Amino acid sequence: MKAVVYHGSGKVSLEEKAYPHLEDPGDAIVQVTLTTICSSDIHIKHGAVPRAVPGVTLGHEFVGIVVETGSGVKNVKPGDRVAVNVETFCGTCFFCRRGFVNNCTDEHGGWALGCRIDGGQAEYVRIPFADNGLTLIPDHVTDEQALFTGDIFSTGYWAADIGEIRPADTVAVIGAGPTGLCTMACARLYSPAKIIAIDTDEYRLRLAKERGLADVTLVPGKDRIQERVLSETRGRGADVVLEAAGGKDTFQTAWQIARANAIVVVVAMYEENQILPLPAMYGKNLTFKTGGVDGCRCGEIMELIGAGKLDVSFLISHRCDLSRIMDAYDMFENKKDHVMKFGITP
Amino acid sequence: MKAVVYHGSGKVSLEEKAYPHLEDPGDAIVQVTLTTICSSDIHIKHGAVPRAVPGVTLGHEFVGIVVETGSGVKNVKPGDRVAVNVETFCGTCFFCRRGFVNNCTDEHGGWALGCRIDGGQAEYVRIPFADNGLTLIPDHVTDEQALFTGDIFSTGYWAADIGEIRPADTVAVIGAGPTGLCTMACARLYSPAKIIAIDTDEYRLRLAKERGLADVTLVPGKDRIQERVLSETRGRGADVVLEAAGGKDTFQTAWQIARANAIVVVVAMYEENQILPLPAMYGKNLTFKTGGVDGCRCGEIMELIGAGKLDVSFLISHRCDLSRIMDAYDMFENKKDHVMKFGITP
Amino acid sequence: MKAVVYHGSGKVSLEEKAYPHLEDPGDAIVQVTLTTICSSDIHIKHGAVPRAVPGVTLGHEFVGIVVETGSGVKNVKPGDRVAVNVETFCGTCFFCRRGFVNNCTDEHGGWALGCRIDGGQAEYVRIPFADNGLTLIPDHVTDEQALFTGDIFSTGYWAADIGEIRPADTVAVIGAGPTGLCTMACARLYSPAKIIAIDTDEYRLRLAKERGLADVTLVPGKDRIQERVLSETRGRGADVVLEAAGGKDTFQTAWQIARANAIVVVVAMYEENQILPLPAMYGKNLTFKTGGVDGCRCGEIMELIGAGKLDVSFLISHRCDLSRIMDAYDMFENKKDHVMKFGITP
Amino acid sequence: MKAVVYHGSGKVSLEEKAYPHLEDPGDAIVQVTLTTICSSDIHIKHGAVPRAVPGVTLGHEFVGIVVETGSGVKNVKPGDRVAVNVETFCGTCFFCRRGFVNNCTDEHGGWALGCRIDGGQAEYVRIPFADNGLTLIPDHVTDEQALFTGDIFSTGYWAADIGEIRPADTVAVIGAGPTGLCTMACARLYSPAKIIAIDTDEYRLRLAKERGLADVTLVPGKDRIQERVLSETRGRGADVVLEAAGGKDTFQTAWQIARANAIVVVVAMYEENQILPLPAMYGKNLTFKTGGVDGCRCGEIMELIGAGKLDVSFLISHRCDLSRIMDAYDMFENKKDHVMKFGITP
Repeated sequence: MKAVVYHGSGKVSLEEKAYPHLEDPGDAIVQVTLTTICSSDIHIKHGAVPRAVPGVTLGHEFVGIVVETGSGVKNVKPGDRVAVNVETFCGTCFFCRRGFVNNCTDEHGGWALGCRIDGGQAEYVRIPFADNGLTLIPDHVTDEQALFTGDIFSTGYWAADIGEIRPADTVAVIGAGPTGLCTMACARLYSPAKIIAIDTDEYRLRLAKERGLADVTLVPGKDRIQERVLSETRGRGADVVLEAAGGKDTFQTAWQIARANAIVVVVAMYEENQILPLPAMYGKNLTFKTGGVDGCRCGEIMELIGAGKLDVSFLISHRCDLSRIMDAYDMFENKKDHVMKFGITP
Repeated sequence: MKAVVYHGSGKVSLEEKAYPHLEDPGDAIVQVTLTTICSSDIHIKHGAVPRAVPGVTLGHEFVGIVVETGSGVKNVKPGDRVAVNVETFCGTCFFCRRGFVNNCTDEHGGWALGCRIDGGQAEYVRIPFADNGLTLIPDHVTDEQALFTGDIFSTGYWAADIGEIRPADTVAVIGAGPTGLCTMACARLYSPAKIIAIDTDEYRLRLAKERGLADVTLVPGKDRIQERVLSETRGRGADVVLEAAGGKDTFQTAWQIARANAIVVVVAMYEENQILPLPAMYGKNLTFKTGGVDGCRCGEIMELIGAGKLDVSFLISHRCDLSRIMDAYDMFENKKDHVMKFGITP
Repeated sequence: MKAVVYHGSGKVSLEEKAYPHLEDPGDAIVQVTLTTICSSDIHIKHGAVPRAVPGVTLGHEFVGIVVETGSGVKNVKPGDRVAVNVETFCGTCFFCRRGFVNNCTDEHGGWALGCRIDGGQAEYVRIPFADNGLTLIPDHVTDEQALFTGDIFSTGYWAADIGEIRPADTVAVIGAGPTGLCTMACARLYSPAKIIAIDTDEYRLRLAKERGLADVTLVPGKDRIQERVLSETRGRGADVVLEAAGGKDTFQTAWQIARANAIVVVVAMYEENQILPLPAMYGKNLTFKTGGVDGCRCGEIMELIGAGKLDVSFLISHRCDLSRIMDAYDMFENKKDHVMKFGITP
Repeated sequence: MKAVVYHGSGKVSLEEKAYPHLEDPGDAIVQVTLTTICSSDIHIKHGAVPRAVPGVTLGHEFVGIVVETGSGVKNVKPGDRVAVNVETFCGTCFFCRRGFVNNCTDEHGGWALGCRIDGGQAEYVRIPFADNGLTLIPDHVTDEQALFTGDIFSTGYWAADIGEIRPADTVAVIGAGPTGLCTMACARLYSPAKIIAIDTDEYRLRLAKERGLADVTLVPGKDRIQERVLSETRGRGADVVLEAAGGKDTFQTAWQIARANAIVVVVAMYEENQILPLPAMYGKNLTFKTGGVDGCRCGEIMELIGAGKLDVSFLISHRCDLSRIMDAYDMFENKKDHVMKFGITP
């Protein structure tokens, strides 16, 4: 079958690979029907993810059809349409029992797919702990609507949840890329009075506004961010800040626009250390929550997609076949043609 | 001035009364611009509220304009348009500090307006603890949009909050009267996948559906309630039940349609004791929260009204002058002409 | 081997039974080293537990040594000393994932041991879902210290937890039997300023006080309970009430001694319906939590036993061999000789 | 009267000053009966607290007797023995209503005493918002037991609370100075299985252990901190870390010894920016809570002192008269003679 294989720093190629097979009673084999490229794939390609294993098939955000299940699998059966979770987890260790599945202590726990074990930029893929990691897609939900469930949607859902948003809050979301937009969509579930989106890319901000995800949009360099956030919040600052950009100054912006006692969720994956200016923020009593999605709420996300309360399928700005995925990598990495996300069909 | 006065069991009349004046540094005098009748007023009229004092002016749900403030009032000033909270509370006692303002230990704490002290079915009214009990109405919010903030909207907001609704939940609301509809509107703020409204009045259920407040409507006697709730929830039952009817069988329905470990909020004011069948519900691990609104979230409610996220002004089905309020009492009490709520102008 | 077998209403006898064997990869076989009789066993004997299956071996509170494990068991191995949980649960269903293991939807989920499947008043017993239901006993913890971990200790721990006790609270515990005393011990973990124990049995109250579990003890019929609780709490009432008696009047006492906005946990298993006087408690804003232990915190309980922070081994007032268990049943059922709990050695 | 006056960077002296008088209806005048020096006083002396006003009387940790009250004061009266809170707060602003009194928006809200308005290293002091900032001392509680209630005890109580400690947790406290020891005492209220104290000062660690506040003590430079914490926690790390040292490396130690998904509370006041190594901690999903005490739980603290559940009066290692306070400043600043805290009598 065709699969995108990582060969160490900088080298990724589409090539032939053997079909996967069941290795454990909890495994399922899934035929991929729609897959996509995530910015983490670009990080892996660049060699910036040390735990990524050369020879592995990439891809951790995809949907498909179950074709085979191990003897211990109860929740899915061949023929089921499923969204696949970026994280595979045992469900019973110390961390899983607390919902911290990102830190599952099993050998294959946490983010393994498309990084430490073969992922879903391929025709078929083996999924360990299938009962925990596959979510049934209702008949009336399309593959495109379900595509992001397991990764960027889970990330936005997790961030909005741990952000402890209350009705009538003002939520600031820094970064209006795919993850930022999913985060806004999920923040909306808690009925903030206002979502302020901040990004340097005005195209993306327009999209946020058109799709009803942001009420106010601000452009660093053009708008005086801190002043504007204060004036939008009666001088208090944002009740919750969700930092999904990971840019040069965005961490500092995040805490500065937060009101006293706010929660600041660091959603973005940073490549550099940041300064934590404790003396300057003394008495502001901020809470910082740092991540890594715990992707164990896919059932709820799918329920909300099915009920028409969540839909970010508009993020799929481009479509192609698996055979053309290397071109897609190039466009996505270099943000050509305002690409948001690809929908790629094996 | 004109005022609706309670004269003991069964007797209520519109009559002349002296203007109120400031009695305490924390007081404000409010000129009532729009008032309404609440089902609690009917309870008082019937003599079913023992703490109601004969001679008192009724009315605890109204909006107006501040005309005078005591020396200690900081948050409002003459000329401000305000929504008035059903509860007056000190803000500093043991209960107030915990947000339990309904149990404020001050002599004038809790529900006093229109019950133990003169209320707002009048041209003017004195409001104790004005800083805690008056909420500014933004210019672009109409009196009709703001009218219910302090009472039935606060009740719905409180019920939805203590119901601990999570995104994707199924919420059942029993009772589609004014309070039930406000409760549904507030439950929506937490993005349940589904709201099931239950009432014997099909006109009200239609309204709930038309206004987007309910996804599923059920009629006791016509629909098999428990069966239908189970089939709407994959056999589990409702995640949260908000009981806003207070009918003969509604408490039993409430716990029966709840899933194991659900929260059941008893919003309605009951006139009779209920059976709590502990043996039958053993192991179902239900939580029951009983009320009495804690009306200290009017700021958030007004914020959401102002942001266009909450609007139940459609409840005002009928309008009249204060001079005709006794006719309105008759229509409201006897549910004539599908009346939901009156908007009454002094 | 010897086992206590239930033969339908009123009939229980010690007899010979076949050794258990592994039936599922998740099973373990445990050799019982210390077992006890619980009041639920008496309920079963009386035919008051309809789901109890004639022919079943009784016993759901015991410790032992693992002698054999199925191929899927990871957390325990032959030779391990373990406390056994009253509840067997899958760990992955809707309820288990939320910690509501009492409502596990698996066929063998919830309270099955000694009721629907053979239990631990025997020499050997099969434990399904062994990874979830067995807790390792540290070397320095004795069988007697560990004996109650899985049932009455879990119940007290669960009750104190859902009671949401805060430091400096006043907690009232109704019932000073074995479960009530475990509940007090667990309530202590949250540092209430005061625990008030209420029981008609003065011997048990003395024990509560001697063991440092209660600060104040009250005897219904002798003390004016409500007045005394008010005077102990500056007129407010208890912040948290844990009802572990299940007596004729104890539910009414429970809500009456609670302060406004208190949490009342119904720990006891009631045999009769109770009156819920909603009109009388209107505005008191009480929360009632009804049970059924969720026994999934045995790890924490054992950690605290091991650290010397929890010890109720003093409850073992009487000891005997399995061969004499029918006498023990008689003494326990009839509360002879101030028996609290038996320690029974197979 | 005698008072310690701050004259700008480096200069502090004991001198004569006029008696304070009531300025607002909410004020009280307190005669100081026992006062102390806090490390923040040393910070002020060094000019490291920019908001400190030259000419101000220092002192924000003291107890006394109410001698006069304004007309609006309800909770205290002349003759009452009281502990004074470091923070004065209005109780009704946006932040106070949420318990975030450190960020009270009133002009005199937050930490004002002994910094922006005259404090308690004097014979008498004026206390604004007396109803919120004074806590009655029960007759059987001594001044020495009550002395720390308003400042370092409140800090420890706040830190332990927001640390969300659960029974059976392992809590690491970095810093065994007066605040660190109070933090340990308050952490104990939540029944962790183990408290690990970390400090370079072995005298203080011994004290922590002798007083039952720490189970394990570790000395950086001597013990391999991270390794030891892992070995004490089955390889997981501390469930909660409370950083009360503010040293050169202590922030890094704090997050490194935390287990995944732990809460790290930054109790200490830092004088330098810290590095937040987001790439290295990615996936560890830590929560950081930064401070500034919200001192609004003094009632609970006093309740626990009165009930014998909290006692850190042993921290008073040295005693003197107000006339000798400048010598006490010297000893305290230079940590002579193992001084922990002074008890100073005006």
